[in-house]
Amino acid sequence: MEKIKIGIVGLGKLGWKHAENIAHKIPHAELIAACSATEEKIEKAKKELGITYGYTNYEKMVQNPEIDAIAIISPSKYHYEHIELALKNGKHIFCEKPLALTLEECEKIEKLVKEYPHLYFMLGFMRRFDESYAYAKQKIDEGLIGKPFMIRCYGLDPIDLVDVAIPFAKTSGGLYLDMMIHDIDLARWYLQSEGKTAYALGGCYVRDEFAQYNDIDNGVALIEFDNGSIGMFYAGRTCAHGYHIETEIIGTKGSLRIGTTPDKNMTSIFNENGVVKECCSSFLERFEQAYFNEVNYFINCLIHKERPSVKVSDGVLSTKIAYACQKSLDEKSIITI
Amino acid sequence: MEKIKIGIVGLGKLGWKHAENIAHKIPHAELIAACSATEEKIEKAKKELGITYGYTNYEKMVQNPEIDAIAIISPSKYHYEHIELALKNGKHIFCEKPLALTLEECEKIEKLVKEYPHLYFMLGFMRRFDESYAYAKQKIDEGLIGKPFMIRCYGLDPIDLVDVAIPFAKTSGGLYLDMMIHDIDLARWYLQSEGKTAYALGGCYVRDEFAQYNDIDNGVALIEFDNGSIGMFYAGRTCAHGYHIETEIIGTKGSLRIGTTPDKNMTSIFNENGVVKECCSSFLERFEQAYFNEVNYFINCLIHKERPSVKVSDGVLSTKIAYACQKSLDEKSIITI
Amino acid sequence: MEKIKIGIVGLGKLGWKHAENIAHKIPHAELIAACSATEEKIEKAKKELGITYGYTNYEKMVQNPEIDAIAIISPSKYHYEHIELALKNGKHIFCEKPLALTLEECEKIEKLVKEYPHLYFMLGFMRRFDESYAYAKQKIDEGLIGKPFMIRCYGLDPIDLVDVAIPFAKTSGGLYLDMMIHDIDLARWYLQSEGKTAYALGGCYVRDEFAQYNDIDNGVALIEFDNGSIGMFYAGRTCAHGYHIETEIIGTKGSLRIGTTPDKNMTSIFNENGVVKECCSSFLERFEQAYFNEVNYFINCLIHKERPSVKVSDGVLSTKIAYACQKSLDEKSIITI
Amino acid sequence: MEKIKIGIVGLGKLGWKHAENIAHKIPHAELIAACSATEEKIEKAKKELGITYGYTNYEKMVQNPEIDAIAIISPSKYHYEHIELALKNGKHIFCEKPLALTLEECEKIEKLVKEYPHLYFMLGFMRRFDESYAYAKQKIDEGLIGKPFMIRCYGLDPIDLVDVAIPFAKTSGGLYLDMMIHDIDLARWYLQSEGKTAYALGGCYVRDEFAQYNDIDNGVALIEFDNGSIGMFYAGRTCAHGYHIETEIIGTKGSLRIGTTPDKNMTSIFNENGVVKECCSSFLERFEQAYFNEVNYFINCLIHKERPSVKVSDGVLSTKIAYACQKSLDEKSIITI
Repeated sequence: MEKIKIGIVGLGKLGWKHAENIAHKIPHAELIAACSATEEKIEKAKKELGITYGYTNYEKMVQNPEIDAIAIISPSKYHYEHIELALKNGKHIFCEKPLALTLEECEKIEKLVKEYPHLYFMLGFMRRFDESYAYAKQKIDEGLIGKPFMIRCYGLDPIDLVDVAIPFAKTSGGLYLDMMIHDIDLARWYLQSEGKTAYALGGCYVRDEFAQYNDIDNGVALIEFDNGSIGMFYAGRTCAHGYHIETEIIGTKGSLRIGTTPDKNMTSIFNENGVVKECCSSFLERFEQAYFNEVNYFINCLIHKERPSVKVSDGVLSTKIAYACQKSLDEKSIITI
Repeated sequence: MEKIKIGIVGLGKLGWKHAENIAHKIPHAELIAACSATEEKIEKAKKELGITYGYTNYEKMVQNPEIDAIAIISPSKYHYEHIELALKNGKHIFCEKPLALTLEECEKIEKLVKEYPHLYFMLGFMRRFDESYAYAKQKIDEGLIGKPFMIRCYGLDPIDLVDVAIPFAKTSGGLYLDMMIHDIDLARWYLQSEGKTAYALGGCYVRDEFAQYNDIDNGVALIEFDNGSIGMFYAGRTCAHGYHIETEIIGTKGSLRIGTTPDKNMTSIFNENGVVKECCSSFLERFEQAYFNEVNYFINCLIHKERPSVKVSDGVLSTKIAYACQKSLDEKSIITI
Repeated sequence: MEKIKIGIVGLGKLGWKHAENIAHKIPHAELIAACSATEEKIEKAKKELGITYGYTNYEKMVQNPEIDAIAIISPSKYHYEHIELALKNGKHIFCEKPLALTLEECEKIEKLVKEYPHLYFMLGFMRRFDESYAYAKQKIDEGLIGKPFMIRCYGLDPIDLVDVAIPFAKTSGGLYLDMMIHDIDLARWYLQSEGKTAYALGGCYVRDEFAQYNDIDNGVALIEFDNGSIGMFYAGRTCAHGYHIETEIIGTKGSLRIGTTPDKNMTSIFNENGVVKECCSSFLERFEQAYFNEVNYFINCLIHKERPSVKVSDGVLSTKIAYACQKSLDEKSIITI
Repeated sequence: MEKIKIGIVGLGKLGWKHAENIAHKIPHAELIAACSATEEKIEKAKKELGITYGYTNYEKMVQNPEIDAIAIISPSKYHYEHIELALKNGKHIFCEKPLALTLEECEKIEKLVKEYPHLYFMLGFMRRFDESYAYAKQKIDEGLIGKPFMIRCYGLDPIDLVDVAIPFAKTSGGLYLDMMIHDIDLARWYLQSEGKTAYALGGCYVRDEFAQYNDIDNGVALIEFDNGSIGMFYAGRTCAHGYHIETEIIGTKGSLRIGTTPDKNMTSIFNENGVVKECCSSFLERFEQAYFNEVNYFINCLIHKERPSVKVSDGVLSTKIAYACQKSLDEKSIITI
C-alpha cells in the first residue's frame, strides 16, 4: 500500500497529537522524521512513534530526500521560514493555522506557495473537518436552510487556561487573529463570500493583564460580507463552563446550530444542581477527530493528486478580516476590508 | 354571566391553590363557601378570597342551598364521607385524587355516584389537563406515533420532601396507591386499555423508615394491559434533582416524551458545573396550570351540562391496578387484575 | 377586598387578552369599561367580560369618574393622545409598548408624565415579567454569573406572519423600533447601563417588500453601553421554526441563556425526522403568563401605592437606542447615542 | 515497538471495521492474517489492509505460528468451534459478543477457556469501552450518585433494518439473547450484582413475521438483582428515529443518563418542523470509537500481560439472565435465575 512519508516539525501538545495520528492511525501516511528543539521529545518520538530520523535542525530535515511532505506545527512565528524551506526542498506542506502572525507574512507566504504550483499546500482549518461542521456544510449545500444570509460564531476558551493565555498574548497577534480567525474561516466557507467591512468591540472584562499587550479578553465583531450577508462573532478567553465553540447559520428557509452546548460526552448528570451536562475542556477534546480527519484528508489528496480544498488564500483572506477587526477595535471605526 | 357557586372543603396547600383559582381566576365560578377544621384558615379565606360562608362543620356547608358544587380537597380518608354527604344534598362534586384509601371504599363511592346520575362527579387527575400531556394525547389521537403499544412513566418526588413523606406513609396507602396512581391513570388514558396483570419490585433503598409502614421509597411495576400493550412504571420518593414527572408513549410509528427533564423554567445556567438546567421542586410548581385547567374544565362542564371526561370509574380502575401492584410486591408474584 | 377599577382602550388580539386577564384573573382589578372603534367588540366585552360601560369615544371613557386606571392597548400612533387625556382626567396608566412611534412623541410623553407625579404610569415591557426572565434577573442580582459584560438577544417573528408584517411595516417605525426595542429594554435592565454607540446591519433577505417602507426583514445591531459592556442584537421577521425569543447574558463568572429553543411545551416527538421539539408560534403563546403578570404587578402597585418599576424613561431610553440603530443602518456609520 | 500479531476471522461489516482498526489504527497491533469464506474479501484485505496471509480455512489460520491472537468476528454459531481451535493452538482470543447462541455452548466455552489459563480471553461488550459509558462508570465509582439501586436500559434498532432482522431472527437466539444481552451486561457492570429473578413481556406489535421464529419485535424485562437492585430493560427492533441506546443509572444521591437522545452529531436543525436533532442510524455509527477502544484495550492487555476486564464469565452470566427473560416470556411467569 502506497504511503506518504512525513516529517513533522513541532512536538508540542498539538504537534504530538498530529504525530501520533500520522504514525499510528492514518493508513496512507508514515511518520519517518520529526524535528523539535527538545532532544527528549525526539527520543520519545523514536520510541513511541517509531520515527527513523530525529532532528533539532529543521533545515536538515527538509533536506532529507526520503520525506514527501512536511507537517508544520511549529510556533506561528516560524511558519514563514519553515514553509519557505520546505518548498525550496520540494516538499508538500500541511501547515497548522494561523498561516503567520502578520498580514504581510501571510501575503509573502501566499506568493511563495504560488511559485511552487507542483507542490501541495494545505492550511489546517480543522473545524471544516469536524463531522458536525462538515455535516452542516453538506446540508446547506443541499439547500436545507435555503440561502444562508447570517452566521453567528462563538469561540470561547476556558477560564482554566487564561493564566497560560496571558503571557502568550505577547506574541499571539491578539484575540481576533489568534482565536476568531477559525470562525472567520468558517463564515467565509458557509456564506461563500468575502469580508467587506468590519466593526469590533471588546475589552478586558475579567483579566486586565491582556491590556499590556494591547489585547483583550473578550471581543465581538460584526462583519458585512460582499454578498450582503452578515457575521456576528464572539471570541472570549474566560468561559466558565469550558471550551465552547458554537456556530449558527441562518438561511432563508431555516437555520442550523452546531455545538449549542459543548457536551463533554453523552452522559447527563441529575443531581442536586439540576440536570447537568458537563462540557469539553479543551480544543483537543472537542476536535480530536477533526485533527485526524484534516491530515488524513491531506494525505489522501497527495495519494490521489487532488489539490487540497483549504488553500493558502483561505489563510490570507481570513487574516485580512481578522486584521480589520483588530484595526476597528483600535481605531473605534468601521474598517473597509 | 352565569357563575357556578362553589363550596370547598380542605384548605391545605393544594386546597388553598384550588380556592384561589376558583375565587379569582375561573371566569364562570364563584367561591362562596369554605370548610376547614382550622378557624384561621376560614378567616383568611374570608379576607383574601372573599367567601361569604365559612364552616368548620362540613355537613352544614353541604346543606347550604346556594352552593351548586363542592370541591373536595380534604384528606383522602374523608373522601367517602364527604362525597356521600354532598351527593345526598344534591351537589355536584369535584374531588381531588385519590378517590379513597382502599379499593372497597372506591367501589362504594362508585356505587354511590351511580345512584345520583343527575349530579356530575369529576375526579382530579390533573395531569390530563396539563398542556403537554393534553398535547401528547391530541397528537396520539391524530395518529402521529401510530398505535401506542408501550408506555413508560416516572413519578418522582424530591428528596427534600422525604422527611414529610415518612410519617404520611402511615396512612397514604403506599407508594403505588399514593404516587403511581397518577401514572396508571395516564397509561389507561393513552393506551385506551385496562390492566390485565401486574408485577412489582421495590424496596427501601434510601430511607428504611418506610418499611415500618410496609411501604417502600422506590418501586417499579410492569403492567400488561388488555390489548397487549405494556406499561413500565417507576415511582420514587428520593429524587435528588427535584420533582420529576416523565412519560414516554411508544407507538408503531414513533414515540413521544413528556418532561424528559423537569425544567424549572426556560433559563439555562452555564457555569463551572457545565450547562445546568434547574428543575421543578414540587407538584404545585410543575402542575400549577393543570390544577387551574381541571377545575375550569369542571365548571365549564356544569355550565354546558356536559358530563366530565374523568369519571369515578377512572379512579376505581386505576386503584385496582395500583392495588395489584402493591399485592404483587407483597406476595412476590404476578397478580391478575 | 379592594379592587382597582379599570377602563381599557383597544380590543385587538392583545387588548382582548389583557381585558380577559383584568376581568377574570387579576384579583384586585375590576374591568368596568372598554373603548373600541368596533361596536361588536364592546358588545362582546359586555357579554363575556361583564363590563358596565362601553365606549366608542375614548375621551368619554376617561371622563368616567368611577375609573381608577386606564389600560392603553390601542395602536401606537394614538398612545400620545390617549396618555395625555388619561392624565388630564386623573387616571393612572398602564400602556403597552411601544411608548410612541417617534422619539419626539416619546419625549413629549415623558414630559407629560412628569407633570402628573401623583399618577402612576407603567410601560408594558412584559418580558421583564416572564418567569424565566425574572428568574435570570434574580440570579444575576445574586451574583451567579459575576458581573455581566455582554448580552446577546434574538427576537424573531415566525415566517407565517410575514405577510401580515409587510403592510404593518408602513407605520411600525421599522424593525429596530418595533421589534428590537423589547431586547434593548432587556439589555438595559440586565446590564444596568445605557446605550453609548450603535452600529447596525441588515437587509431584505427573504421579502423585498419591506424595502418600499425603508424597512428590512432581518437586522442586527452591535451596541456599546456606557459601562463598557456590549450588546449583540438580532431581530428577524422570517423565522422558519416559530416565534423565537432568546437571550444570553454573559458575566465574569458564568452565563445564562433564556429560551435557547422556543419549546412549545414539554413534549418531544421521536419520529423519522429525529428528535423534534415543536416551537412556540406567537408572542401570545410564549408570553401569555407575562402579560398577566405585568398587569397584575401594576394593579398591586396601585393597591400598595408603590411606583411601578418600568418607567416612562425606560421607554424613552430604549427608543433612543432603537433610533440610533435605525440611523446607523440608514447612514452606514456608528451612531453616538 | 512491540506489536501483537493478529489473525481475524469474519470479514462482514463489523469484522471489516475491526480489521481496519487493527491494520491501521491500533499502535501495538499488526493484522497479518484474515480468514473468510469469501475469496474476494481476502483479496480486498490483502490490498487495503496489507495482510500477509489470507485463509478460507480457519483451522489453517490458527495453526500459523506467527499469529499471537485471534479476533473472532464470525457468525455466533461458529464461536464455540473457533474459540476451541484457537485455544488448542495457543492463541489469545478477542471474541465479539454473543459468546454463543445457547447457554450450554456458553458454559462449554467457559469451561474450555479455564483450561487454558495462560491464554487471554476477552469478550467484546464494546459499550463498556464507549467514552460516555466508561465516564459514567468512573463517576459512579467515585460516588457521584451514591449507591446505584436501579438501572433502565433501552436498546432499540432502527425500523429501517427490520426487514434484515426478520430472517436473522431464525438463528439469532431471540430479542433477549441477541439484543438485550448488551444491556444486561451493562446492568451487571454498573450494579455490581448478578441476576436473581426475571420477568418479561413482549410481542409482535409492528411486524408479525417475528412470531414464526418464536421471536418478538419489542420486549421488556424487569430483573431483580442479588443485592436488591432493579433493572428495567426495553429492547425493540422498530425504532422510528434510529438506533437508540439509552441507559439510566439511579442511585441514592442522584442519577446518570447516557444517550437520552441518540444525536447523530452536534448539529441541530431549526426548520418548519421545530428544533430537530437527527439521530444515529446504526450501531457502527454510534459505537465506532468503542469498537476501536475495546480491541486497543485487549492489545494493551497482551502487551502489559494484564488479564482483560471483560471475562468469559461476563458472557455466561449475562446469557443466563437473557435466557431467563426468554423463558419468562414463553412461560408467562417469574423465572428464578
